[in-house]
Amino acid sequence: MALTLRQSDMDFERRFAAFLSTKREVSADVDAVVRDIIARVRAEGDAALLDYTLRFDRADLATLGIAVSRADIEAAYGKADPKTIEALKLARDRIRSHHQRQMPQDDRYTDPLGVELGSRWTAVESVGLYVPGGTASYPSSVLMNAMPAVVAGVERIVMVVPASGGTINPLVLVAADLAGITEIYRIGGAQAVAALAHGTETVRPVAKIVGPGNAYVAAAKRQVFGTVGIDMIAGPSEVLVVADASNDPDWVAADLLAQAEHDASAQSILITDDAGFGKAVEETVERQLRSLSRSATAAQSWRDFGAVILVEDFEAAIPLIDRIAAEHLELAVDDAESLLGRIRNAGAVFIGRHTPEVIGDYVGGSNHVLPTARSARFSSGLSVLDFVKRTSILKLGAEQLRALGPAAIALATAEGLDAHARSVAIRLNM
Amino acid sequence: MALTLRQSDMDFERRFAAFLSTKREVSADVDAVVRDIIARVRAEGDAALLDYTLRFDRADLATLGIAVSRADIEAAYGKADPKTIEALKLARDRIRSHHQRQMPQDDRYTDPLGVELGSRWTAVESVGLYVPGGTASYPSSVLMNAMPAVVAGVERIVMVVPASGGTINPLVLVAADLAGITEIYRIGGAQAVAALAHGTETVRPVAKIVGPGNAYVAAAKRQVFGTVGIDMIAGPSEVLVVADASNDPDWVAADLLAQAEHDASAQSILITDDAGFGKAVEETVERQLRSLSRSATAAQSWRDFGAVILVEDFEAAIPLIDRIAAEHLELAVDDAESLLGRIRNAGAVFIGRHTPEVIGDYVGGSNHVLPTARSARFSSGLSVLDFVKRTSILKLGAEQLRALGPAAIALATAEGLDAHARSVAIRLNM
Repeated sequence: MALTLRQSDMDFERRFAAFLSTKREVSADVDAVVRDIIARVRAEGDAALLDYTLRFDRADLATLGIAVSRADIEAAYGKADPKTIEALKLARDRIRSHHQRQMPQDDRYTDPLGVELGSRWTAVESVGLYVPGGTASYPSSVLMNAMPAVVAGVERIVMVVPASGGTINPLVLVAADLAGITEIYRIGGAQAVAALAHGTETVRPVAKIVGPGNAYVAAAKRQVFGTVGIDMIAGPSEVLVVADASNDPDWVAADLLAQAEHDASAQSILITDDAGFGKAVEETVERQLRSLSRSATAAQSWRDFGAVILVEDFEAAIPLIDRIAAEHLELAVDDAESLLGRIRNAGAVFIGRHTPEVIGDYVGGSNHVLPTARSARFSSGLSVLDFVKRTSILKLGAEQLRALGPAAIALATAEGLDAHARSVAIRLNM
Repeated sequence: MALTLRQSDMDFERRFAAFLSTKREVSADVDAVVRDIIARVRAEGDAALLDYTLRFDRADLATLGIAVSRADIEAAYGKADPKTIEALKLARDRIRSHHQRQMPQDDRYTDPLGVELGSRWTAVESVGLYVPGGTASYPSSVLMNAMPAVVAGVERIVMVVPASGGTINPLVLVAADLAGITEIYRIGGAQAVAALAHGTETVRPVAKIVGPGNAYVAAAKRQVFGTVGIDMIAGPSEVLVVADASNDPDWVAADLLAQAEHDASAQSILITDDAGFGKAVEETVERQLRSLSRSATAAQSWRDFGAVILVEDFEAAIPLIDRIAAEHLELAVDDAESLLGRIRNAGAVFIGRHTPEVIGDYVGGSNHVLPTARSARFSSGLSVLDFVKRTSILKLGAEQLRALGPAAIALATAEGLDAHARSVAIRLNM
């Protein structure tokens, strides 16, 4: 049974606040271990990668090779279901189309004083994409991380993926190939992050590292941040479904469980204005749980972090929705558009009864890498903007410097920065 | 004397690489102290703020008050030079005009299948602006951090600034007032960051914290990241001046020293194609140093981290410029525009002989909060984009779900995610 909260209850605010601040993830303290791994990769290069991969991934790169070959990729196609390959192509094309609209425009203009200003966007020169091994090795995630970089014009995209027990999920290699990634290494964990940040004999360093990973990968990304850029550190996934009684409880239950099956730390929340509907969804969740291959995981997530929140009406739900600031928000209500217009915080919104969040995971075209754990209050999902950076441009002639110079000198002087003042004054013969 | 590097020398690559990897900042290990401060502010609220402020800032907030009052701000105007106030107004207006062009546009469209997609931008709901006390308490920095948030439409902007010895730089209060900030607290250090992130009786928490600070502030921002958003952690400032022999050595020397006076860890680099000009600039730097109020700081920066790099021609300088990835790049050469078009990495570019970097520090209109320490390879200066976030929107009808659903089911099944597959299949009666 999930938690039930009624907005009309006296102690709702206290219980809702406690619910919001529940930590869903115990952050393992792996910093010291990771520090050692990074130091050793920096000192010993490929030799350290071979040793760590033998120990942690039980894969012998001296035999397999660090780099994945063209033949390996061709072989992966042979192992993949053609229907899945077609679905990956559809996903890739839709992700590309959508992300092309995110490309920022350069700006260059002259202001009334004759000062030229501008912003110029350029692609990050090289990016490393981390892909986990094992059961969390998702081809959809390869596309979602790679395609924005491709659209941004990143010249060198490098993928690392551990060959757990010697093998890599063939669909991950197919997805990489469909995205156009040709440089792939069989490495994972903190050692792969270290190689991407600092380079080894085989792996040239990159400027930015993106992609999900376990606690070691996350700690390694934090530690190399500054030497390279990193993306957000994603937490466990969550969905908030806002639904009225006109919905089929079976559909809503399925959506809640689609989130819960990811991870025992995932979170599924239903907000409804109808207690009977809430009850029906809860019962349906219990029933659907029985026939899921990952039912133990989903059941634990629902029991530990799931919630049904009963509101008087959806108007009253708006502040709750903004405080939850969900990664995924489904609006399965009649006037979803007007509700959308009044909501500030959500990673992605799925509108109407025929837009299950799962479509966004795969083939919607929008990105499935989204802010978790209430960080939609201050951050956005992965986009082309994560793979470009802006250079600002300023250009004055002698006349413009005469116009603006005295104010700059006044401020520099007020701030006690003589050399700043001189740098302007000397040009004005002051 | 600064370092001299000649691109034509046999060992240039080795020496340039060593120069690039020089650490300019020793990061003090203050994590444990900061952790304690944050924990105590969370537990004790205002009482902890009062105690820490008495100890660290020698200011008694029980008497002064935590909040700065309207009367305090009026009094600050009385202490400020009217010419400086006018200069701050000019700076504010120019920063506002420039940043208004950075506001991203919402996007909503229907694709050929009839799927509706979109991106909606909303302002971060509340932002805390950290302003250092003492000599690094710069009014220009208040404007540069606050105005993008104002333009973004952030509803609540809170400023914290320590009252070192009981007083706050009046120009900092004036700048805050000119930016429209009304909520100001006399607190600094890790305790101020903790108050902004977690709240106390007096200080309501914010969603994002920006602004420069010392090692304690930087460590505190890192530790509260996740609970709130943070901006980049800025390192010591740097300038790269690319100049030919047609420049006045006096102008170029002044620009190099304007950077060097910031901090003994600041860095000033000259790239020139003329050894004689390089020599002349070095001599002029030594001469100008003598008449600076902050000459000890500037001399140490120039001696420890300054460099003159001699290139065959500016064509050959391009890869060096990109590898340095300077926070500030001055292009004082004849064909600066064509050089600009071929450079990828720089925080801000200042074009031509009449655009000293100092104009950008104050009144150019562009932002002076820029990526340091080579991070311009993967990040951008502060902008309106730092105060907004994007929600992606997806909307399918029954027909669109029939078109895309089977591919989503295929991918979910391939990834072993049954409940994902069911969430789509159940709507298609599959």
